[in-house]
Amino acid sequence: MQGRHIAYQARRRVLGLLVFDARQSRRGFSTKPQPESSTQANISLSNKQRLFMTDPVSPGSIFFLPHGTRLFNKLVSFMKNQQARYGFEEIITPLIYKTQLWEQSGHWENYKDDMFKVQGFNKSRDEDESGLHEYGLKPMNCPGHCIVYSQFDRSYQELPVRFSDFSSLHRNEASGALSGLTRVRRFHQDDGHIFCTMDQINHEIANTIKLIKDTYKVFGVAEKNDITYYLSTRPEQYLGDISTWERAESRLKESLDKSVGSEKWSVREGDGAFYGPKIDVLLQDAFGKKHQVGTVQLDFQLPSRFDLKFVSNDGSRSNRPIMIHRAIFGSLERFIAILMDQYQGKWPFWINPRQAMIIPVNESHVEPARKLQKQLQGDILNENVPISPITGYNFYVDLDDRNETVGNRIKDAIQKSYSYILMLGDKDIEKGTVAIRSRDNRKIENLTPTEIYEKFIKLEKTFQ
Amino acid sequence: MQGRHIAYQARRRVLGLLVFDARQSRRGFSTKPQPESSTQANISLSNKQRLFMTDPVSPGSIFFLPHGTRLFNKLVSFMKNQQARYGFEEIITPLIYKTQLWEQSGHWENYKDDMFKVQGFNKSRDEDESGLHEYGLKPMNCPGHCIVYSQFDRSYQELPVRFSDFSSLHRNEASGALSGLTRVRRFHQDDGHIFCTMDQINHEIANTIKLIKDTYKVFGVAEKNDITYYLSTRPEQYLGDISTWERAESRLKESLDKSVGSEKWSVREGDGAFYGPKIDVLLQDAFGKKHQVGTVQLDFQLPSRFDLKFVSNDGSRSNRPIMIHRAIFGSLERFIAILMDQYQGKWPFWINPRQAMIIPVNESHVEPARKLQKQLQGDILNENVPISPITGYNFYVDLDDRNETVGNRIKDAIQKSYSYILMLGDKDIEKGTVAIRSRDNRKIENLTPTEIYEKFIKLEKTFQ
Repeated sequence: MQGRHIAYQARRRVLGLLVFDARQSRRGFSTKPQPESSTQANISLSNKQRLFMTDPVSPGSIFFLPHGTRLFNKLVSFMKNQQARYGFEEIITPLIYKTQLWEQSGHWENYKDDMFKVQGFNKSRDEDESGLHEYGLKPMNCPGHCIVYSQFDRSYQELPVRFSDFSSLHRNEASGALSGLTRVRRFHQDDGHIFCTMDQINHEIANTIKLIKDTYKVFGVAEKNDITYYLSTRPEQYLGDISTWERAESRLKESLDKSVGSEKWSVREGDGAFYGPKIDVLLQDAFGKKHQVGTVQLDFQLPSRFDLKFVSNDGSRSNRPIMIHRAIFGSLERFIAILMDQYQGKWPFWINPRQAMIIPVNESHVEPARKLQKQLQGDILNENVPISPITGYNFYVDLDDRNETVGNRIKDAIQKSYSYILMLGDKDIEKGTVAIRSRDNRKIENLTPTEIYEKFIKLEKTFQ
Repeated sequence: MQGRHIAYQARRRVLGLLVFDARQSRRGFSTKPQPESSTQANISLSNKQRLFMTDPVSPGSIFFLPHGTRLFNKLVSFMKNQQARYGFEEIITPLIYKTQLWEQSGHWENYKDDMFKVQGFNKSRDEDESGLHEYGLKPMNCPGHCIVYSQFDRSYQELPVRFSDFSSLHRNEASGALSGLTRVRRFHQDDGHIFCTMDQINHEIANTIKLIKDTYKVFGVAEKNDITYYLSTRPEQYLGDISTWERAESRLKESLDKSVGSEKWSVREGDGAFYGPKIDVLLQDAFGKKHQVGTVQLDFQLPSRFDLKFVSNDGSRSNRPIMIHRAIFGSLERFIAILMDQYQGKWPFWINPRQAMIIPVNESHVEPARKLQKQLQGDILNENVPISPITGYNFYVDLDDRNETVGNRIKDAIQKSYSYILMLGDKDIEKGTVAIRSRDNRKIENLTPTEIYEKFIKLEKTFQ
């Protein structure tokens, strides 16, 4: 019964793809643009692979469809693991904060136009002993992280304190500016804030740049030499004193020289944020357009506005930490757009929402094909245990048992960008092996199911 | 360098815990209530274990601190894996939707007072060709899921379509009603919606009840017989025709009889939602208070309001699917509150945010202790590779190398509820083993690091 159930699921998925790929989506994007821009190419690819959609009921907010969500979640898991390794502790922080928080953070003064206001439809619910409140929907995580930092007394021995957060962020871009995944109103960052001493800055920045480089390498963007680093320095309008700025800028310069080499970065004079200098990392997409992804920003301003402190080893309680804002992917939505350009829909196996397609040669091979499917889906999707384990290797493996020629079904799976195609006929079943070929190479290997599962694990481990 | 780094991290963590556990939090909760209610007991435990906090800047929104976030994420991972196995496809849907969506869904009429309104601070940004818009911050995922369903033509072969979603939800509870984790304004559900035919209802409900029972068993609440099932039937004010209601109610009755037994459930006459009958699952906490957790609701109303359709096998296009709303944990925040009561802070290993504490007997054992820590933290936290893999067993293992007696450090680790305490002295290092004891049993075993790692994997796999 469970067996029938999953087979039904798999068939449904295959049929679903077939039925809908060839057809115009009922609403939303047009399906046949000549890709002239990154955005158009992305939308066309998304339609073909059913990754995401938008709808006029929420302009600028992306609906990630099941296969887009798989991609999104893989990126998040990837980054959570890297951040854990680099000493970040994930926290979950509110989305709405009273106006007074945004006044304290300076967003009220500098960022209000880009923010959404939140109020109860029933205003009486927003009233408490301190009055009637309205809220701002957060455009950034930093003020919330300052609240968490300031909740407890902090010792110098605790520093650096590193918080990560994958919250939804909302910025009210003008509706005319909205575009695909790159200009949105709701997005997610692989956001992190480091609270540290001046002496710890170099180490933290070096670590961040190391992670940026290692990460981009995994996604194959580093080899193409299309990463640009900029140091943005003190603008005309700035807060704080010049000596602190100069010290901070020289720290960033040292870090850049050491981490990326003196010839690989340039200065954007006067382009820093009002609260501190920053390093911006830009990636060039397949269409030549540069996108800001990673960022490392030094901030002396928020720690002072939130009166953040730590107790030093001589017991003095008035020490001010420095705050570093950093992101590696930047906006996950935008990073996915860049990856769509990068791979043109040919996702590498480890991140592919469609990892393998099984094709039983005829009706008599469907049962063993289902068994194979379950084995490769792994522990988590294994319906033979009442409850799935929390950790395990599992893969997105579908089954195409339609009454179509093997050739047509292979063509179809390749067109849908399945990384591997697994064929199962009499000879294979006799030998206990499976005929496997990749999307990009016609060469067929004969491997046992266990060998295939191990091959998949190895591909995932090596980010192929 | 990396080695020093992680050791520093670990030490920091230990010191952090020590310094702050004994002290009053600077803001927020009082730390010394006599637990008279579930909420008070939870807040007291949360302070001790630093799980979550609240702040007046966002009443009713929980800040999950690092260790609370670990718990939260474990529950989400657990449920994502179960839902994948039951054929749910996760989607990510927007948080704000134009007023017209809420009018269409009926929330405007029936739920407006409990909702938050969203507008740009700069109203001109909310204007497009169709006028000036305001938004509602979503209190439920269902209308968004209807939008995704209706984006594509759906075939009978695709049904049931099952979407899952872990979005933030906001409901504007009156400020006086807010309480700990159980009455909040922002929360997360393990939400899922099934779009299916009338014939598929029984199977889907049976699956949901099976998952509810299996899940609660994992958390040890099933044995206590404190699960109550209610069938809530047609209220005085209802939509649709009586025959459909009766058919749906009889389906739910059949499912309950079959899945939980006829003596285990009771009827709440007239207590259904206006859109359909429902099954509510209630758990009793350690203080005798009943909390609604799981729910299975049949809905004929939203499919009609959103004009949802599927193409049947005879090609007719006017078939209306039925929608099932279901949740297993219900609100994750509330479920965590119940688990806090259930375990009184003594988290089972697999979900414990503090899984093991390593205690080197003296300074000379610190280096091997660090090596042990790395080994047990597993692949993901292993800093010897440039990039952590996406899958792997990793555990929360800390190191206490303070200049304190072993006895005091053990006492301290037990008080903090570490599941296991690992001691390392000369004799252990000589023998290549580690002296390990559990939080709840003084008995000491001598195991090799590999044996301990395998023990931990087994504990995780068996939800102990």
